[in-house]
Amino acid sequence: MQRVKTAIVGASGYTGQELLRNLLVHPHVELVAATSRQEAGKPLSSVFPRFRGLPGSELAFIEPDADAIAATGAKVAFLALPHGVAADIATALLAKGLKVIDLSADFRLNDAAVYEEFYGHVHPVPALLDEAVYGLPEVRPDAIRAARLVASPGCYPTSILLPLIPILQAGLIEEVTIVANSLSGVSGAGKKADTTLLYVECNESVRAYGLPKHRHLSEIEQELSLAAGVPVVITFIPHLIPVTSGILTTTTALLKSGIDPDEIGEALQGAYADSPFVRLLGKGGCPDTKHVTRTNFIDIGWNYDPRTGRVLLLSAEDNLGKGAGSQAVQSFNLMFGLPETAGLLFV
Amino acid sequence: MQRVKTAIVGASGYTGQELLRNLLVHPHVELVAATSRQEAGKPLSSVFPRFRGLPGSELAFIEPDADAIAATGAKVAFLALPHGVAADIATALLAKGLKVIDLSADFRLNDAAVYEEFYGHVHPVPALLDEAVYGLPEVRPDAIRAARLVASPGCYPTSILLPLIPILQAGLIEEVTIVANSLSGVSGAGKKADTTLLYVECNESVRAYGLPKHRHLSEIEQELSLAAGVPVVITFIPHLIPVTSGILTTTTALLKSGIDPDEIGEALQGAYADSPFVRLLGKGGCPDTKHVTRTNFIDIGWNYDPRTGRVLLLSAEDNLGKGAGSQAVQSFNLMFGLPETAGLLFV
Amino acid sequence: MQRVKTAIVGASGYTGQELLRNLLVHPHVELVAATSRQEAGKPLSSVFPRFRGLPGSELAFIEPDADAIAATGAKVAFLALPHGVAADIATALLAKGLKVIDLSADFRLNDAAVYEEFYGHVHPVPALLDEAVYGLPEVRPDAIRAARLVASPGCYPTSILLPLIPILQAGLIEEVTIVANSLSGVSGAGKKADTTLLYVECNESVRAYGLPKHRHLSEIEQELSLAAGVPVVITFIPHLIPVTSGILTTTTALLKSGIDPDEIGEALQGAYADSPFVRLLGKGGCPDTKHVTRTNFIDIGWNYDPRTGRVLLLSAEDNLGKGAGSQAVQSFNLMFGLPETAGLLFV
Amino acid sequence: MQRVKTAIVGASGYTGQELLRNLLVHPHVELVAATSRQEAGKPLSSVFPRFRGLPGSELAFIEPDADAIAATGAKVAFLALPHGVAADIATALLAKGLKVIDLSADFRLNDAAVYEEFYGHVHPVPALLDEAVYGLPEVRPDAIRAARLVASPGCYPTSILLPLIPILQAGLIEEVTIVANSLSGVSGAGKKADTTLLYVECNESVRAYGLPKHRHLSEIEQELSLAAGVPVVITFIPHLIPVTSGILTTTTALLKSGIDPDEIGEALQGAYADSPFVRLLGKGGCPDTKHVTRTNFIDIGWNYDPRTGRVLLLSAEDNLGKGAGSQAVQSFNLMFGLPETAGLLFV
Repeated sequence: MQRVKTAIVGASGYTGQELLRNLLVHPHVELVAATSRQEAGKPLSSVFPRFRGLPGSELAFIEPDADAIAATGAKVAFLALPHGVAADIATALLAKGLKVIDLSADFRLNDAAVYEEFYGHVHPVPALLDEAVYGLPEVRPDAIRAARLVASPGCYPTSILLPLIPILQAGLIEEVTIVANSLSGVSGAGKKADTTLLYVECNESVRAYGLPKHRHLSEIEQELSLAAGVPVVITFIPHLIPVTSGILTTTTALLKSGIDPDEIGEALQGAYADSPFVRLLGKGGCPDTKHVTRTNFIDIGWNYDPRTGRVLLLSAEDNLGKGAGSQAVQSFNLMFGLPETAGLLFV
Repeated sequence: MQRVKTAIVGASGYTGQELLRNLLVHPHVELVAATSRQEAGKPLSSVFPRFRGLPGSELAFIEPDADAIAATGAKVAFLALPHGVAADIATALLAKGLKVIDLSADFRLNDAAVYEEFYGHVHPVPALLDEAVYGLPEVRPDAIRAARLVASPGCYPTSILLPLIPILQAGLIEEVTIVANSLSGVSGAGKKADTTLLYVECNESVRAYGLPKHRHLSEIEQELSLAAGVPVVITFIPHLIPVTSGILTTTTALLKSGIDPDEIGEALQGAYADSPFVRLLGKGGCPDTKHVTRTNFIDIGWNYDPRTGRVLLLSAEDNLGKGAGSQAVQSFNLMFGLPETAGLLFV
Repeated sequence: MQRVKTAIVGASGYTGQELLRNLLVHPHVELVAATSRQEAGKPLSSVFPRFRGLPGSELAFIEPDADAIAATGAKVAFLALPHGVAADIATALLAKGLKVIDLSADFRLNDAAVYEEFYGHVHPVPALLDEAVYGLPEVRPDAIRAARLVASPGCYPTSILLPLIPILQAGLIEEVTIVANSLSGVSGAGKKADTTLLYVECNESVRAYGLPKHRHLSEIEQELSLAAGVPVVITFIPHLIPVTSGILTTTTALLKSGIDPDEIGEALQGAYADSPFVRLLGKGGCPDTKHVTRTNFIDIGWNYDPRTGRVLLLSAEDNLGKGAGSQAVQSFNLMFGLPETAGLLFV
Repeated sequence: MQRVKTAIVGASGYTGQELLRNLLVHPHVELVAATSRQEAGKPLSSVFPRFRGLPGSELAFIEPDADAIAATGAKVAFLALPHGVAADIATALLAKGLKVIDLSADFRLNDAAVYEEFYGHVHPVPALLDEAVYGLPEVRPDAIRAARLVASPGCYPTSILLPLIPILQAGLIEEVTIVANSLSGVSGAGKKADTTLLYVECNESVRAYGLPKHRHLSEIEQELSLAAGVPVVITFIPHLIPVTSGILTTTTALLKSGIDPDEIGEALQGAYADSPFVRLLGKGGCPDTKHVTRTNFIDIGWNYDPRTGRVLLLSAEDNLGKGAGSQAVQSFNLMFGLPETAGLLFV
């Protein structure tokens, strides 16, 4: 099978590194371009010594220029850029006939006004919002297969949405009672020269942040509302914990009156029994991030407390993997007619 | 001022170590006995090399025998023993005229039936439950001052109760909506030869556990109900995170209809403005465990989300400090007429 | 290409887990048996939740019985057993026509007397010591290709031997001045219910141990002596540091009089320019374990201090990877005529 | 006893924080000034939330101006400034009659030429080098007692010098064979917005750096030469390991011909039997940084390998404590006629 010529735009951060980690060894990918303003000219292997010795790691970073990327013959570009920056180059690459998988927030929201509310600036190309597909492969695989532009979800949203969507679709919980607590590894904050992210400041430390209206709420509530068929507003409490990567999310909500708690397990089973990357741990299962880091798996367990009538949903994923890079590769597999698991089944 | 002759019973675990850490340098304490079945005969300094060179660290561990402890002239004993074991020696020591500060769960519950429900065995000495004082120094200092037997609270309960009690006393939130998420360091699980607590199993790992009915719910709900004046049942989700010590708790609940959110801050201020160990960070304050580890401080912040109507309470403490050992010393200070902060103001 | 039917004996520890991690996804392997006395009957995926969802992970552990293993049709067995235990089952499996790759110390030493000196008991099958090949694939690939029994090296030895062997072969340093300092992750101590390996005891801790005569010195000095052509005795100082995996070794020795320091780099280059898993960082290169963990790479840098006349050799590897499991797979590739890198080029 | 009015110049970094941690609770200190260009105007408690609630923590940072400092009545100033910057303000403060304890490298070397060689610029005030006392309290207590200007040692030097000095004074080892390996926590690199110090870059990572001529060699070799009575040049290999603080050093050297190895232990005992902060673990003792972090203790063990004739010296200290801040306080105690342990005996 021919390899798909592939570019990564903005490949020098942690998400870019995760994309490289997956795509350099993907059996159906030929990496033809990786861009980075600050590393242009250097081989991947010098910026990421971990990749030395892998085939393809001597490719040199180039400047993020749409013409140059198109000239490599790339059929698809992954964008790992800050929001606001991604939209412009996505537009240019689409115009040149590439498919685009954007890992920024720029195309995740259907409504430009919500984008402006949460990101603080006018959306650069609102015309593309209708076309973009919010890329949860387990939720809308067919739309992703057909898409030209996929907006790959954020790390927190993936961990909250995958457990909740089937439950809301089945109408099992009181939407207004949803509270999601997430614990994220430090790589989620990016590779920034910021003293609050220093080893000494993060080690032996735990803290909540971004309260009460984290930006990811915009896409979380959009997708939850679609699943529930009614507007859903939730409480979301992100925390920073001293691990390199991994997100653990625990979500609680009241079971609707008259519902048998076991319908929770059935709804999850119905939605994900055939999904290769969702591992259902069943009632009482407590996922642990150490079982999913550096993979595309998400582990989901659930519980029910008869004392309070509340359902507990627990999920574990890698914020850089299923929460970012490898999930984008999963969408890529769908878009190019490859097996969904191609290049993603290693641990 | 004369030093109080003091014993620690069960001093070879992590809580015992924290008690030793505080009491060896306490200006009003003379440590006359430390017991440990398995370390009997060895000096403190050989079991805890960290203490070498401190005055008093050459004291040798003895067997946990009430007569032997009383013979040292001890006026007070701290018990850092498993539940079920503490009750018997407490009874014996009280009979010999010592005061007792028990850090186990044995005397925390007012109701022997609740004890049996949560701890799985009949309470050994239910007659003492009435007398025992649940030892939150900020909540009932006078009862502690007068007490012969103090039941020092657990680590999770302290982190949940101190923020919530004033809010419930003021009637500001819907009790039935309370959800508490706690993240605890690994020392909270004790010093046990258990493979699930190995470095390799806990590092780069986050997991919830003990769902949905953790034992600490018994004392948490007892004290919340007392504060609210009505029975309170909550959802409590404990997690294990890779830090040595520290607990971060985030609690959410619906603000009652018609209440001004600023009353949350006022209630906390009213309760704790003069408490030397409660540090109020105000609205928007996000406590961080790294600022409280190895101290007796608890940091409390709060927030309000107008989108959902929910209050957020955040607290950080050291599970071995304010959540166990140093809080017990704070009660000791009250019981012996010492300044509340004696021996506890270092960081 | 047909897959090689493969067994892992003693697969429930950390080395066994690493072997499984590599072999479950190896393109030329069919895992037909995995043994564990304590986990017999359970599927791999329940003992190692990380493997759930991988093809082959539903295989159930069996008892470590040579007949049962042979009955699966296995052509080769990896042994991840304690020393003393491995020798017997190796003998039985060889007798049944399997090839054996033993990751214990049982066949690493040429001399049964040295084995007895360092391991404290008589060697169980000294007759096999002559046949066994000490399995450093970069040092004796042809012997490994032809071997029926490979003794795969220990983690510390690999990190010390690969940098030193070419230097000693070239006669560049004073053998008597060699001092090797190694820093190892905690997984190197194995998965044992031992309080000294608890998270709380290892986190925020660094300590040397096993001084002055660590067991691994026996194989280290055997191989160094072979390389130098004279008996070599070294100082070796192992340390435990708070990382899950990874070994960093820094070795110093006096440059021989009259030698140009650049010959160090040339010797390394001459030995490893074509080795796919040895990455030479050159003069001044400082390897970092984070670039090699979970891979089969070893990174080697070197330096020279004209002030003291000493050469510095620095190496980084994963103690479970190149120091144990993946290095054994590299030998397997050679033994079965596969590309040396088969199944090992991912990061 | 009257408290000594004390200033800290450059108090916003990790060393400054450690000085504050010690001096805020020191029974004989009144902290009258703390300077920080970037934090001027803010109270200590807002820059260091850990200190909230401690008496004195509401003091506001001021600009680092000698006149302003003198105007507070300070009798002594601790300087925690970069090298090159400390010298000027030290000169100004001395001129105003203050004693100065400088924690930078500016006054540690006796020879301005060596300073220029290692620090890359001309020494600002060479005239003061003669007067400055290299402040190892265990080595020259009387000179410190009499000093106006103490140059408090660096973290690596303290960990290397204290074990070696008595051994060299007794003439027990071959000076030319000394190799010192040190493993340091990340706080030793300071609080800098530098991506190489990010949590994600340091966690699960170990690396050597600064080879082969780290700046600290200048003061190490100066002091070793003084002890040996001959010029001593050593190999020193510093490493960065993922702990917040702590340094473990292992030093090897050949025992001189004809010397009984037990003389090593006797020399250490002779030098430090009465030193309150040096804890001798004896032959076979393996210090662990977790027993000394956040204290002024240094633990020292030793060993001898008859196979190689080498002595092993092992030491553990806190790089911010005995390696910086608390050691400076120990010198302060001597300079002001206080008990050497005043304010330093807590763990």
